[in-house]
Amino acid sequence: MTIHAAAAGYEPDSGPDLSATLVLPFVKGHGTENDFVVIPDLDGEHVLSIAQVKFLADRRAGLGGDGVIRVAPAATSTEPAISEQADEARWFMDYRNADGSIAQMCGNGVRVFATYLRERQLEDDDEFAVATRSGPKTVRFDGDMVTVDMGRWELLAPGRSSERGFDTLVSLPGLDPLPALTLDLGNPHAVVALPETVDLDALDLRSPPLVHPEPTEGINVELVHALADGHIRMRVVERGVGETRSCGTGACAAALAVMVWSGDGRTPLHQGERWVVDVPGGRLGVQALPNHTVELTGPAVLVAQGTVRVPMI
Amino acid sequence: MTIHAAAAGYEPDSGPDLSATLVLPFVKGHGTENDFVVIPDLDGEHVLSIAQVKFLADRRAGLGGDGVIRVAPAATSTEPAISEQADEARWFMDYRNADGSIAQMCGNGVRVFATYLRERQLEDDDEFAVATRSGPKTVRFDGDMVTVDMGRWELLAPGRSSERGFDTLVSLPGLDPLPALTLDLGNPHAVVALPETVDLDALDLRSPPLVHPEPTEGINVELVHALADGHIRMRVVERGVGETRSCGTGACAAALAVMVWSGDGRTPLHQGERWVVDVPGGRLGVQALPNHTVELTGPAVLVAQGTVRVPMI
Repeated sequence: MTIHAAAAGYEPDSGPDLSATLVLPFVKGHGTENDFVVIPDLDGEHVLSIAQVKFLADRRAGLGGDGVIRVAPAATSTEPAISEQADEARWFMDYRNADGSIAQMCGNGVRVFATYLRERQLEDDDEFAVATRSGPKTVRFDGDMVTVDMGRWELLAPGRSSERGFDTLVSLPGLDPLPALTLDLGNPHAVVALPETVDLDALDLRSPPLVHPEPTEGINVELVHALADGHIRMRVVERGVGETRSCGTGACAAALAVMVWSGDGRTPLHQGERWVVDVPGGRLGVQALPNHTVELTGPAVLVAQGTVRVPMI
Repeated sequence: MTIHAAAAGYEPDSGPDLSATLVLPFVKGHGTENDFVVIPDLDGEHVLSIAQVKFLADRRAGLGGDGVIRVAPAATSTEPAISEQADEARWFMDYRNADGSIAQMCGNGVRVFATYLRERQLEDDDEFAVATRSGPKTVRFDGDMVTVDMGRWELLAPGRSSERGFDTLVSLPGLDPLPALTLDLGNPHAVVALPETVDLDALDLRSPPLVHPEPTEGINVELVHALADGHIRMRVVERGVGETRSCGTGACAAALAVMVWSGDGRTPLHQGERWVVDVPGGRLGVQALPNHTVELTGPAVLVAQGTVRVPMI
């Protein structure tokens, strides 16, 4: 084969150098189509580099996932805030975003993580705690459904909210600005009550909705239709990501906002009742509990397992 | 836990029914980031249903890939056009698109397929044939690089092409219509020579480019910058799919069009020389051969292997 002279600089490009690879076990799973690569690191020896997380989460060059979860023993973690949880929780959910950055918690991810622990008999009980960067979280199994304590929630701008429970405007292409309520669930959310006349499925969410006043560090936006008392349907645009099939904190924020709107504008009217939240990737349950806490219930599916060649990068 | 009365219709939704699942072996791999789920079916027993292919290709609920390739013996195929190839080719590349439909061939997929056969020692030679729905294809290994015979190519509208080798106009957002050449490589392509002043990386390809005259069955569009003699760079919008990281027939079409433009408007000037084609997912080589045939060269990477739970659907 003749290589053209001007193309003498041709260098075969086979992607990351796989001559130096680490072969790691993995499990792929999802919760309402929020999907994760789980890396069992039962001896706590393989903290993943940013480049390795990016590789694993890459949907074409790697395995693909919204996040990467390393399963490691809490007791031997080099993060003091984790090893301190070892009395309560045996296993640490080392959650990383697809870009390699560290995350505190993930409501859909923790169900997949807990389901992995049960399938591998690393936990045998129906209820146990897992260590996370936002503290120990209790998970509870009921058949195929997994419930997780999502911790505390707050209104983001309580001084600003109107009597009807709105504190913000959100602009979507082709629609007048819509009133919304902002909530803090460890991350910020703006929940929009869509008028019945607006077709939720037809909304153009390719660009992030504009939020007024503009949050300095971005905000997740939920677009919500109430289907019945206790049942809502939503789509979600995650900050820095775009539209996703599901978002655990987003589902909680959406249900809480609707409960707030039907209450006194500050406190959920339907505390203690489980609300059904339909997201594009499936169905979740949300329950508001005393002390401004909230629980998320939903499925978790482990789809595949095997080994993956991770570049030494 | 109280289920709200109005939500009595709450049914746990854990996605496809995994109570009846088939556990299949799989390999995940890619060629210039065109990625595939490979299902070794060495006894030829598991023809995949459309729903199963969709599940495997689903990037969130399944494993994820641009296509699904079943590895089956050619001799026992129920497709007569395949079993007839068994004298030449031992293994059949049963290629399926992500939507479950049947495809003839895939230039990036066949390299991944052939690399799998070599890694598992199902083929030992540096050169062998594989059976495909567009006939037996010869693959050739040279280190990490795999070359595949892509068969014949033709100008799509030879009577219409101008002296300078253009036969079509393509419209992109914010630009005047650009001249293009259409080619048939088993599938149709329109190759646009981008002016140097246009920033290839900045093009908005979220919507399919408009092509005049409009092809009745759609067309793949390649946007090309010549970097040097023998070296081009491109982006590709596949019909029915949108922009992809790589396209084997698209890379061939792009290189051939540039060779035609530098020749007499019908025949490649640079026949026999290998051109370098940079796509977003990596680097490919294209060689025009006598009799209007063309070869594609590029890498193939096997990333992961294991087992996957496929619903009986």
